[in-house]
Order: sequence, then structure tokens, then C-alpha cells
Amino acid sequence: MFRTVITLLWGAGLAFGLAIVPTFQAHAQDSDAVTVQKLRNAALDDRFGYRFVETLTTTIGQRLAGTDAEARASMLAEKTLLDAGFVNVHRESFPITAWIRGRGEAEVTAPSSQRLVVAALGGSVATPPEGIETEIMVFPHYSQLLAAAPGSLDGKIAVVTEPMPRAMDGANYGAAIRIRRGGPSEAAKRGAIAYLHRSLGTDERRLAHVGATNYAEGVKRIPAAALSVPDAQQLARLAALGKVRIRLVLTPTSDEHAQAWTVSGELRGGERPDEIVLIGAHLDSWDLGTGAIDDGAGVAIVLGAGNLIAQLKVRPKRTLRVVLFGAEEMDYSGPAYAKMHADDIPRIVLASEADFGARRVYTFLAPASAANTHFLQTLADALNPLGIFPTRQPAISGGDDIAPLHAAGVPVFSLRQNGLDYFDIHHTADDTFDKIDPQELAQATAAWVTTVYLSLQTDLDFRKPAAGSKN
Amino acid sequence: MFRTVITLLWGAGLAFGLAIVPTFQAHAQDSDAVTVQKLRNAALDDRFGYRFVETLTTTIGQRLAGTDAEARASMLAEKTLLDAGFVNVHRESFPITAWIRGRGEAEVTAPSSQRLVVAALGGSVATPPEGIETEIMVFPHYSQLLAAAPGSLDGKIAVVTEPMPRAMDGANYGAAIRIRRGGPSEAAKRGAIAYLHRSLGTDERRLAHVGATNYAEGVKRIPAAALSVPDAQQLARLAALGKVRIRLVLTPTSDEHAQAWTVSGELRGGERPDEIVLIGAHLDSWDLGTGAIDDGAGVAIVLGAGNLIAQLKVRPKRTLRVVLFGAEEMDYSGPAYAKMHADDIPRIVLASEADFGARRVYTFLAPASAANTHFLQTLADALNPLGIFPTRQPAISGGDDIAPLHAAGVPVFSLRQNGLDYFDIHHTADDTFDKIDPQELAQATAAWVTTVYLSLQTDLDFRKPAAGSKN
Repeated sequence: MFRTVITLLWGAGLAFGLAIVPTFQAHAQDSDAVTVQKLRNAALDDRFGYRFVETLTTTIGQRLAGTDAEARASMLAEKTLLDAGFVNVHRESFPITAWIRGRGEAEVTAPSSQRLVVAALGGSVATPPEGIETEIMVFPHYSQLLAAAPGSLDGKIAVVTEPMPRAMDGANYGAAIRIRRGGPSEAAKRGAIAYLHRSLGTDERRLAHVGATNYAEGVKRIPAAALSVPDAQQLARLAALGKVRIRLVLTPTSDEHAQAWTVSGELRGGERPDEIVLIGAHLDSWDLGTGAIDDGAGVAIVLGAGNLIAQLKVRPKRTLRVVLFGAEEMDYSGPAYAKMHADDIPRIVLASEADFGARRVYTFLAPASAANTHFLQTLADALNPLGIFPTRQPAISGGDDIAPLHAAGVPVFSLRQNGLDYFDIHHTADDTFDKIDPQELAQATAAWVTTVYLSLQTDLDFRKPAAGSKN
Repeated sequence: MFRTVITLLWGAGLAFGLAIVPTFQAHAQDSDAVTVQKLRNAALDDRFGYRFVETLTTTIGQRLAGTDAEARASMLAEKTLLDAGFVNVHRESFPITAWIRGRGEAEVTAPSSQRLVVAALGGSVATPPEGIETEIMVFPHYSQLLAAAPGSLDGKIAVVTEPMPRAMDGANYGAAIRIRRGGPSEAAKRGAIAYLHRSLGTDERRLAHVGATNYAEGVKRIPAAALSVPDAQQLARLAALGKVRIRLVLTPTSDEHAQAWTVSGELRGGERPDEIVLIGAHLDSWDLGTGAIDDGAGVAIVLGAGNLIAQLKVRPKRTLRVVLFGAEEMDYSGPAYAKMHADDIPRIVLASEADFGARRVYTFLAPASAANTHFLQTLADALNPLGIFPTRQPAISGGDDIAPLHAAGVPVFSLRQNGLDYFDIHHTADDTFDKIDPQELAQATAAWVTTVYLSLQTDLDFRKPAAGSKN
């Protein structure tokens, strides 16, 4: 059955011009400096990744982990890696609990009838089929919910309306995420029967931002959903005038015996094949949009970079491994990969995941071991023409799917993309192909191919503490 | 029943600070130039209209013509006019066919399953309850639909994906509106069983822009809906790859025996009370948002301007009439008003409707009769400090509800607001209170109060051709 689908998809890919043609010439005698310049410039003109994400989002659309769509995406990626010349290409499945949204509806029932835009959080339990209809209690700050006494929310819906400020590096998301991940159980501890929060978004659109939540052990699991930003503001205004009642209907379902797929492929190193530079992105997406910026763009970047390196006449010294994770959004694929590839971990010398949209890269963070090295100076010089300058702190995160590898000792790097508008779109229905600017995506791909190529060529052992480093 | 509701609403209004307090001092002996300067400056600091639209959109929300919500809005407006000191305040009903949305769902069923964001056009008939599932035919330009042969769309859904460009004065809406108003019948003439078009929007959001459609006499009425811009783009990409099938479900209903309400009030002129300057806006809205920019903002502007003039110690020479129309979106209130007030029309010396959002005014257009007059120079000088400069053509439109009056001989003026982002939000769920910048709204109100006051004071007969005018 899948074979037919894939044939169709690949036909689509060809129609969009995904066919692989050499876009630049590199010669065997080129120095690293010459090769990296050619790669960088080729990436700026290349549309390989952009065409891939167009095909992915157009012919498959949303790719919620554990669904047929996610499986089809993994097959499309597998074929793309094979056709680009990767070896050791394979899809590997791992068990997950798939979560399917169902209906998500809410309305103010008093003082007057008004429709609200909501979307269930990933992992949320359902309301009764007829919904919950009760009074709300609004908390302008999450800390006020935490300060509420046990029992003070008995029978009510807790509503947290705290906003998340805009930031170039998205740092406020890290600070705000407990509102989504921890809120339902904190509200339940205090007696709430459901939980709503203002979307972790920087926009003013009537679209809810979803994302995974986590129920605490031993606490009653209550239905939880995100409100669009304007709807959260509306509830805050209404609650300031008196009692407000809401009806909430969420009908998600779960399948504890689903599976997701991670796809990987390698370009074997010409000199030190057992030293692996791993670059990744995730193929799964949320279900409301088509996962273009999260994380179709990341897939496009690593496939685009990988494809350019695959076209080199001389294989780089180290092995490049591209890994396309299958269940990042619900936190499954990173741990599953680290567990299934525990034996590999000592051979992975550097890793990073592209998972922050489709905009241009503006800075990079290297592992602490690279401080004050010739490698880092060479990399900085090579990224400079792209308008990218180093941040003088070591990289402490390589992305969610890389975290378990990092915890097991794998050094990471980070190429930070401009995220000023990332959280306008992130995890909403608005995450669609039209949001990707091909030139910005090409710049990001150029940054990745530059960083990856120099990392494949260097003799530097990223696991060793830097000699003479002040870090 | 309504009395209780209104008490509640008014309580809400007070809570938001809608209480009327004098915000400036004007003296009996002031010249027009001094008074208009005081009015203009007072308007810039005033938040009367802003608070009104906050109350309107928060406590009532959407106000689809013919619904209880629209009736409640008319009562809130009536009370606001009375409390501001207006006389001859009354609500008048008129018959309309109310149209209620129901469900609007669409999905691609082949080549792969994908949800589409659609919303039925106002006035659309319903699909069968189970929906329509058939192949689509995509037309990148509306002219291509018009060029299609009869029978060429038999059994298909016609999809027009023509975009509407952004423009400061919104001029492209006028050119594109036939896609929405005329498309369903043009498609039906050629055999189509349903019609979809790319929203008349300048945004890239997954929100459909609705609006009224018009079925041609003698042509089969087919269900019609707007696609969000990204969904229209997605269908265009998919259709380029092969056959696409869609399932469409629309369940609107109509009530041919509904009524809507228009509210008006006057400040009687001190010298020539039988000469009326009429300013209007519309209280009804589409149902997906809360009608903040369309047209809560317009209501805020004319109520804000009217309230400032009501506070003057000396009544202006002519009569000011504020009219808040009750069914603009479905084209009922303008014709109904002109019909019910046919006897008044000779006494209306000038009219205009504020119905283009909440942004600042950048230019004004006066009636042809004002060309080369002292009045127009005085007005230009008074608007200049607001950054508003005249357009050297006569006003040819005073707004949709004013058009029937204009056709019957009433001169009109136009204060053009910056509409660069108006069609990002227009007729979508995103039309909510948070989109209004109070300072821009205050500037627009200042422009209106300036224009209205000088029009109330001038001796100029706007109905007479200008002496020595080159127009």
C-alpha cells in the first residue's frame, strides 16, 4: 500500500523540480578553504531543501507522530537520501503513544454567548462528550496560580493569561513553557476541572498555539487547551467585569500502541569514518498546519546541506550522518534514538538539530572544546560573509532530539536563526509553506553546510577540554 | 428581557470608564478657529470612542445583522447617545433576511487527506448535510473562469485563486469584489456545483475572509465559500500535480422574516437646524470576529466626534445627526434608511460613513462644491496639524450606507484612513479589539470632529456647483 503512495509522492517531487542535479563544481585538489567557499556559495543558489519542504507540505501536509502521514514522510525522506547518494539509509520504528486531536470547541456561555478559539494540548485527556460548563478563574500570571490555595479552584476552569514576550533567540519560550507543560497538574492540585492558558505565541491572531503538556504523577488528569491570544485577552476583560462561564469540549483520543519512524543516512568519511558528525531535524509536526517552519524547514536545511556535501568529488574525512527524527513534538524520538544507538554514541563527535524555523542564521555557538582553536577561527571567517558572527559562549544545547546524546557526552553546536516572528506561527494552523522565504532558508543552509564541512575536516577532538581555554 | 441585558451592558460600560466627563473647555465667545483647535486637541486625548468599542466587542462580541446581539448593540448605542446629550434618539427596525452561518468544513480527499480552512459567503445556500465530494477545477484568474465554456465545469467545484494586492486606500478590493459577489453564479452558469475563492485578503493567515455574495436571477444557486490564502495556495500547488478532490460541507440557514435596527440621534443646530450634517458607521458585523475594526472603530469615531461636539457650550449652526446603521454587511441598511427617510433627504446637506478601520486618516476628499472655497482652505489648515493633506479630487463615495443618499443628491465627503493592513483582518475571526491602536483611533476621531464641526459652521451650500470650480 505504501509503495503506491510513495510513487505518487515522488512523482510530485519530480514535478516540483526535486530532481538532483549538480549545482557546483568542486575539484579534488581544492583546499578546505576553497571547498567551503564553493559549498557556501552553492547553498545560496540551491533550492534542493526548499523543493523538498514544498513537496513534503503540499503532498503530505500535517505529519503528526504515529499517523500514516508521518510514515509517508519518512518514506519520502528515505528515498530522497538514497537518491542524493547517501548510504546506510534506513527507517527505524519505535513505539509511541499517538495522540489524535478530535474536536476542540469552547464558548463563553455567560454573561453573553461568544465563541472562543481553543486547541487541545498534545497529550490532553478528553472532556465528557457533552463538554464541561462551569465558571472560570483567571490568573494574569502563572505564579498566581501556583500561589492559589488547594481547593480554591474546586469545580472551576483555571485560565492563565500571562503573555510571552518576543525575543530574537526565542529565550522567553523556555521561561514560559511551564505554563503549558506544568499548568494542568498545578490547576488540578487546586481543584480545577479543566485548564486553559494563553497561547505561547507572540502574535495577535485567532489561532491557538498547541504543544505537548505533561501530567504529574499522582495528580488527576484534567482536560487542557490553549486559547488564541485575542481570546485570552477577551476572557481577561470579561472576567474583570464579573463572573464568566465557559463550555469546553475536547475529544482527543490516544493509541498506546502506535509507532513512529526515524530516518537516517550517511556519507562515509574518507579518512576517519568512525568519527561521526550528526545533523538532524524532525519530520513529525503538529496537526493544525503543515509543519513548514516546524520542522519542514529544519529538514530542508539538513537535507540541503547533506546533498551538497554528497556531491563533492572527494568524501570529507569524517562521516556525516543525517537523522530525521519522527516524534520530536511529543518528546519520543530523542530518547528513543539515544537508546537504540547507545553503541554509536562514543563515535558521534559532534551533533546538532535544525529546529527553529526558516529564517536566516545570525550567530553560532561552538562546543567549549573549540574555544581559541584554529578550527573556530576558520569557521568564523567562513561564516562571516553570510553575516554570521560568533557568540562567545559555548553551545549548551543542540536541540530537543539531541539532548539525550548531549547528556551522554556528545558535544553540540548551535546555529541560531532569527526567531523574532517564529512564535507568531509556531504550533499553529498558520505553519504553512508560504511562510518560508527561500533566500533566508538558503542562507541558513549555507551556514549549516559551512559548519558541517569544516567539522568533518578538522582534526579537533570536540570531546577534549580546550587547551588554554578560558571557559 | 432586553432591559436586563442592557442594564448589565451599561454596568459593563461604566466599569470600562465610559462615563461621560468633560475633557476640554470651550467658551461661548471662541471663534470657529479656536473651537476647532480645542476640539481637535481634545479628540487626541479622548478615549470615549475607544471605551465604547471595548465595551461593544467585549460584552456583546459579534453582531450579525438580525441577531439578538445586533439588537443589544443598538440598545447600547441608543443609551450612549442619550447619555451624551443627543436628542431625537431612537432605534428603528427594518426587515431583512438574516443569514446564520452553521458549519463550514472542507477537506482535500484526494490525492491525500488534508483539512482546509473555509468559511461560507454571506447569503450562500447550504450543501446537502453530508456535503459535496467532487473534483475541483482551479482558475488562477477570475477572467479564466469567465472564459470557460458552458458545461466545462459540470459536476465540479470551481476554485478561483486570484490574489488581491495590498493598497493604502484599499482600491484593489473594489476591483476584486466581483470574485466574491459574482463568482458563484458565473461558476454555476458553467455547470459547477459549488464555488470556492481565495479570500479577498492581503494576509497569509489560515483564516478565511467572508463577505456577502449575490446570486444572479435565474441561475442555480450553488454553495459558496472563501478559502484562507494559504489554503488557496495549497490547492493551486496540488492541482498543478494532478486531480484534486474536495469534500465541502456548509450548513447556513436563512430567516426571511428577521429585523435589524438602525440607531440615530441629533444635536440640533443653533441657527439652521433644518440643515443636517449626517455622519454614520455601522453597528452590525460579521460573525467570526467581534467586529472591532469593521465597524466598531467607525462607530467609535462618529460617537467620539459627536460626544465632543455635544459638550460644546454653544450649539453649532447646523444640525448634526449621527446614524449607526444596523445591516451594512448584507447591504440592507443603506437602502432601508434612504427609503424610510426620503422626506429628510433634501435637508441633509452633507454625509459620510466611517467604515474603513481604526488607523489614522491620511487624506480627505471634499464635495466638488467645496473646491476653491474659503471653507476648504480652512478645513485643510485645521487638518494639517494631524498630518492630513487634501486629495485634489472631489469625493465620489461616502460609504456603502450613504450611497443611496448620495444617489438621491446628498453631497458626501471622505476621510481616508491608512488601509495597508485593513484587508489582513477584514471579515475574519481576527477582527478583534486588540487590533485597535487607541492613538491612531484618536487621530481619526480628531480628523472627523474637525471636518464635522467646520461643516456644521459653514454657510457653504454643498449642493451647489462650486463657483469658478475647475471640476
